[in-house]
Amino acid sequence: MQAGFAMLCAGSIRSINIKNIMLKNLLDACGGAIGYWSLGYAFAYGSENNSFIGSSNFFLGSVKDYTSGYDLAFFFFQWAFAATAATIVAGTVAERCKMVAYFVYSFALTAFIYPIVTRAVWAPQGWLGAFRTNGPSTTWCTTSQQEMGLCISGSFANNDGFYPSRLFGPGMIDFAGSGVVHLTGGTTAIVAAVILGPRIGRFKDEHGVKLISPNNMPAHSVILQVLGTFILWFGWYGFNPGSTLIQSTASSSYVAALAAVNTTLSAASGALASFALRWALSDSGLLDVTALTNGALSGLVAITAGCAVVWPWAAVVIGMFGGFLYIGFSNLLIKLRIDDAVDAIPVHFANGIWGCISVGLFASNTLVKKAYDYPTNSYAGWFYEWSAGCNRCGNGSLLAAQLVGVIFIIGWTVCLMTPLFWTLNQFGLFRVPKEEEQVGLDISHHGGSAVQLTKPTEEALAAHKRKSSTPHSPIPPPQAHEPQIAKVVEIEEDDAV
Amino acid sequence: MQAGFAMLCAGSIRSINIKNIMLKNLLDACGGAIGYWSLGYAFAYGSENNSFIGSSNFFLGSVKDYTSGYDLAFFFFQWAFAATAATIVAGTVAERCKMVAYFVYSFALTAFIYPIVTRAVWAPQGWLGAFRTNGPSTTWCTTSQQEMGLCISGSFANNDGFYPSRLFGPGMIDFAGSGVVHLTGGTTAIVAAVILGPRIGRFKDEHGVKLISPNNMPAHSVILQVLGTFILWFGWYGFNPGSTLIQSTASSSYVAALAAVNTTLSAASGALASFALRWALSDSGLLDVTALTNGALSGLVAITAGCAVVWPWAAVVIGMFGGFLYIGFSNLLIKLRIDDAVDAIPVHFANGIWGCISVGLFASNTLVKKAYDYPTNSYAGWFYEWSAGCNRCGNGSLLAAQLVGVIFIIGWTVCLMTPLFWTLNQFGLFRVPKEEEQVGLDISHHGGSAVQLTKPTEEALAAHKRKSSTPHSPIPPPQAHEPQIAKVVEIEEDDAV
Amino acid sequence: MQAGFAMLCAGSIRSINIKNIMLKNLLDACGGAIGYWSLGYAFAYGSENNSFIGSSNFFLGSVKDYTSGYDLAFFFFQWAFAATAATIVAGTVAERCKMVAYFVYSFALTAFIYPIVTRAVWAPQGWLGAFRTNGPSTTWCTTSQQEMGLCISGSFANNDGFYPSRLFGPGMIDFAGSGVVHLTGGTTAIVAAVILGPRIGRFKDEHGVKLISPNNMPAHSVILQVLGTFILWFGWYGFNPGSTLIQSTASSSYVAALAAVNTTLSAASGALASFALRWALSDSGLLDVTALTNGALSGLVAITAGCAVVWPWAAVVIGMFGGFLYIGFSNLLIKLRIDDAVDAIPVHFANGIWGCISVGLFASNTLVKKAYDYPTNSYAGWFYEWSAGCNRCGNGSLLAAQLVGVIFIIGWTVCLMTPLFWTLNQFGLFRVPKEEEQVGLDISHHGGSAVQLTKPTEEALAAHKRKSSTPHSPIPPPQAHEPQIAKVVEIEEDDAV
Repeated sequence: MQAGFAMLCAGSIRSINIKNIMLKNLLDACGGAIGYWSLGYAFAYGSENNSFIGSSNFFLGSVKDYTSGYDLAFFFFQWAFAATAATIVAGTVAERCKMVAYFVYSFALTAFIYPIVTRAVWAPQGWLGAFRTNGPSTTWCTTSQQEMGLCISGSFANNDGFYPSRLFGPGMIDFAGSGVVHLTGGTTAIVAAVILGPRIGRFKDEHGVKLISPNNMPAHSVILQVLGTFILWFGWYGFNPGSTLIQSTASSSYVAALAAVNTTLSAASGALASFALRWALSDSGLLDVTALTNGALSGLVAITAGCAVVWPWAAVVIGMFGGFLYIGFSNLLIKLRIDDAVDAIPVHFANGIWGCISVGLFASNTLVKKAYDYPTNSYAGWFYEWSAGCNRCGNGSLLAAQLVGVIFIIGWTVCLMTPLFWTLNQFGLFRVPKEEEQVGLDISHHGGSAVQLTKPTEEALAAHKRKSSTPHSPIPPPQAHEPQIAKVVEIEEDDAV
Repeated sequence: MQAGFAMLCAGSIRSINIKNIMLKNLLDACGGAIGYWSLGYAFAYGSENNSFIGSSNFFLGSVKDYTSGYDLAFFFFQWAFAATAATIVAGTVAERCKMVAYFVYSFALTAFIYPIVTRAVWAPQGWLGAFRTNGPSTTWCTTSQQEMGLCISGSFANNDGFYPSRLFGPGMIDFAGSGVVHLTGGTTAIVAAVILGPRIGRFKDEHGVKLISPNNMPAHSVILQVLGTFILWFGWYGFNPGSTLIQSTASSSYVAALAAVNTTLSAASGALASFALRWALSDSGLLDVTALTNGALSGLVAITAGCAVVWPWAAVVIGMFGGFLYIGFSNLLIKLRIDDAVDAIPVHFANGIWGCISVGLFASNTLVKKAYDYPTNSYAGWFYEWSAGCNRCGNGSLLAAQLVGVIFIIGWTVCLMTPLFWTLNQFGLFRVPKEEEQVGLDISHHGGSAVQLTKPTEEALAAHKRKSSTPHSPIPPPQAHEPQIAKVVEIEEDDAV
Repeated sequence: MQAGFAMLCAGSIRSINIKNIMLKNLLDACGGAIGYWSLGYAFAYGSENNSFIGSSNFFLGSVKDYTSGYDLAFFFFQWAFAATAATIVAGTVAERCKMVAYFVYSFALTAFIYPIVTRAVWAPQGWLGAFRTNGPSTTWCTTSQQEMGLCISGSFANNDGFYPSRLFGPGMIDFAGSGVVHLTGGTTAIVAAVILGPRIGRFKDEHGVKLISPNNMPAHSVILQVLGTFILWFGWYGFNPGSTLIQSTASSSYVAALAAVNTTLSAASGALASFALRWALSDSGLLDVTALTNGALSGLVAITAGCAVVWPWAAVVIGMFGGFLYIGFSNLLIKLRIDDAVDAIPVHFANGIWGCISVGLFASNTLVKKAYDYPTNSYAGWFYEWSAGCNRCGNGSLLAAQLVGVIFIIGWTVCLMTPLFWTLNQFGLFRVPKEEEQVGLDISHHGGSAVQLTKPTEEALAAHKRKSSTPHSPIPPPQAHEPQIAKVVEIEEDDAV
């Protein structure tokens, strides 16, 4: 996944800042590993009965007691998620953020902010999620839930003999992290972009009047964007179907296969929807590759929460809406003069929210049963209520849990990230000086440009020519790296049928 | 696989058309997913007893009845094959094909043409393939086949009490799609290339006399070609050994391992053969990277049909001949003035045919038994007949079935694709106008060049220089993206031993 | 892995030699497959009771007798290791080595030199390794070893009724090849670099006085370096956890998960350590991407031997020291005027040694038991002796075995490679002529530059402009591939918060 993000970023920003972004992408993978190993994993999955934060297994200290490799494999998988959350922000703040700020933020995210979110949604003790199976609670099972066998199996019965309940009954369903990973990262990106401000010259101003259309900062390479998108798409199959490894119900293989199919369909429909909408909105019929790549990513983010609990047709609908949402939110950001160098906010923030909500709309009770071992006809998305597709399906409680989850994740992240970035900014540690930004970070910080084309000298070419009686030397004209001129040739009748 | 093809194409064409090809590669992955989900999969694997076309499970509508995830995983796997077949053509028609034609063709291929081929060869009802286990038939088991237990287990006994037979007894063996995937794609490519005509300026003409050697259109980047080849090579391990998942005989793990080894050896020998032949044919001893990459792909395509049923030594032979065939067919296309921008036709068409035929020559009866659960000594390649390696091995019936398969695939594809492309061409929807082609599609359709190098202005450099008392500013000379001149230095005695 | 190395090399050398290095990377994958299949695998794993060299199963000839696919899968895995060992050298000798020499060396390495090393360390008959389970021996079990059940189960009891012992009791532990793969490749690289001499102009000389700081040869692309590093990092998960497939003890899944976690942590700490040290040593606070990428690779190489037998905290320590070692050794090479175009020697040679030794220091007896089925409290690293962490833990015998292993690998490789390269050099087959080197190998051998930017002519642009009343033609200024000038804009107050 890191490789995918790195290529996507390198392709999307201006070529004067490529070394800088490459460095950030590698650094957060490394820093994330150390931060998550030392603190984050303990906060997220420490075995205490605290539904907010764990406090054991720092530095994987309990690893000696394991008898199976499950917990180690789980750590490895969770680290990949944590590093993904951190790296989302790199693209948004590209071309103007100081390295030290990036360090501080990365560590804060992987070591504390993100782990708290994962504990709430994914840990068995968490107060918010559908995986909750024990731990104290402020909400209690109703009698009818108890009858249906929906209460969690902890030992915390209250005075009336009632057991704790998941939030609103079902708890929040976020199968592979639309909310936990992408919304957390996306919210951080939006806070950072607002405080950091736009790149110099991004938005025009004439005589004090703000102009609407922004200056385009030329993306360095479409090839790298597409390569990055394909790598990410491929990586998503590790995350979405792979998440079935976290649990192992009787239907694991079914769920994994469904997740793979839904992931594919949502990415495809997201890409096509976004591409078509951008084309329709463009005066000149522009066929925009970026809309296609970011549309695919939008579809992927949107299906991440629900990939295991919706039918394929719903995956197509979710992806399509995700693609439209991307275009709309991208345009909205420009209106708001928030500068996102790689459009990570529309992809991860907007579609992170949509992914969580879409579960509340389209989750099928049959599939929730398969994926989470709930009784059939217990909980389903609002669509099934509305279309009378299932009876006694929770009366909107799943949608309510999803909404609470979204609000919690945004609120928690904004509340912690705002003071962090604001403080960095006050001390001048957030944004690079004007001169360094304009000359490009590769020159000002990293010793020169990222791409260096070397060209042989005229003398070397001449010397080579003189000696070229050797068998290996068909001498091409000394055009080495000069652009090759494609000659205008009249079409011959026999060439073009 | 898509990522591999995308990089290979981006590396092989001229840099003025890169955005365009990137778009096509992503679009056919997306369009293929939608086309195959909506119609294609139903046509290919609908459960009816029709050996030509299925008619159920449109939009994966039967997915609710599945109890295991097998069918979903199978869909996912089959989608990957369908998208691969579609993307083969992108490279051939690069630099001159209209986007709308690419849309139409992609959809037609994944939604109808390709599914009919897969049903024939891979579905249990198909009339052509070795996987056939039920369904009506026009050929009937002979008495001796019945005695050997070779008849299919359907319930369609004819009046004489005979059961249907696979085609000629063994049916066509195309384990992972030399014919189904690559030949279908390659045939489409050849039809498209003929109707579309060569790129402007590709073939020279002087005073009405056709010159033989073509103008080379400079390939954009060898790095991307090699990256693409490695990605594809890696992806092939998903297809060839992965295809053992389709079935599960007692020998699955053996067959998967054998497929991996054969895939490796054939790719290697194909690459070396093609590279050596190109070098031997060249006057100047050119060491051609493209011959190596396309030779490896040729070896991969050639072994795809037989990877599970030939011994490693045969894989080396098959790959080697595949490499030679690539060079020969590539030269033939130039003589015929058919312009293939990335040489996809020699790789996929010529070696698709060779892959199918090679099974008829080198399939070992021991391995056919392992992979397809046939009785040993039932069917083997013609080599074993000829070398007296096995007794009663089918008398060439396997080779005959392979030939029929090749003819069917080519015939079916040509018959449907020719009118499609011809119609598009008549309505002016196939080829871009002369002016757009000459200026490059990236400028004419996609808003500018795919690679944008930004350079700081002199003022920015000067401003940065003035402020550079900060610790981070070793000022390099303002050479940013200007080519760096490698100085001619006299060799010092102590430098060069 | 090959793809990773190819991208890393393409990114790290000068752009005039890219085709050449791409060719070498693909060629050694292909040549390695053929060399290992024909001879190497038989020498390494032939079933004879010879602890130095095998002599059966040439050309995978015994493959017909297999009943399970295990041996074929094992061959495939071992081929990947062999090709990796061969490709390490490509980067070091880049920009000046003749193709024929590269051919010869590649074949010699994969077909003979490397197989002898693997037999010693990894084969059950090998005299050096911990996997040894049978075969003749010159060392014999002591009485106490026999009591502890530590003797190997072969049938070669000596006159006194004693059974053969592994070397010093534990044998050398090199789980996934720090020594076998990386040290063998790295030693070859150092021999080649010394005999080949530095690139022209790499080291300065003024009036006979050798200057210390070298001329930097500009690396072609940091993007490709980072992409290569990510691909390699990812590939390492195939090698390190994948190596648990070679054996299958009761704890396989635990061991695989531990290997994955250790690999991650070591790579991360290696990268951070190397990056921080380079930054601290630099006068100008340079943030060097190459130090980060090569640091990560150093951490990966260093943990390869011990990934299954050390705890995560030790993996962090091993990686960190590996990162420091990289910087130190890289500087040492410059002092010694050995020119390594991609710094492969500090990564693979120095950290290959460190990886082997670190096992002798940090291996935990609990984990050695899990990974190798030894009795607990039999053998551990020297750290546990020293810190009294375990009782009767082998008294340094593991460290001694590791040291013998390191010496054997270096000695064997140097003794065979030195005459080979020296002979090639004497016959003028090793280094390209001065003129060819200076003009770049892509021009002199491969028909032109690796990256070709095509630019539309002025006439084509004009013609396109005239016709541009079509809906698809927003004409951008004819700037196609000319560098885009980022204008110096004064910061507007409302832009920069």
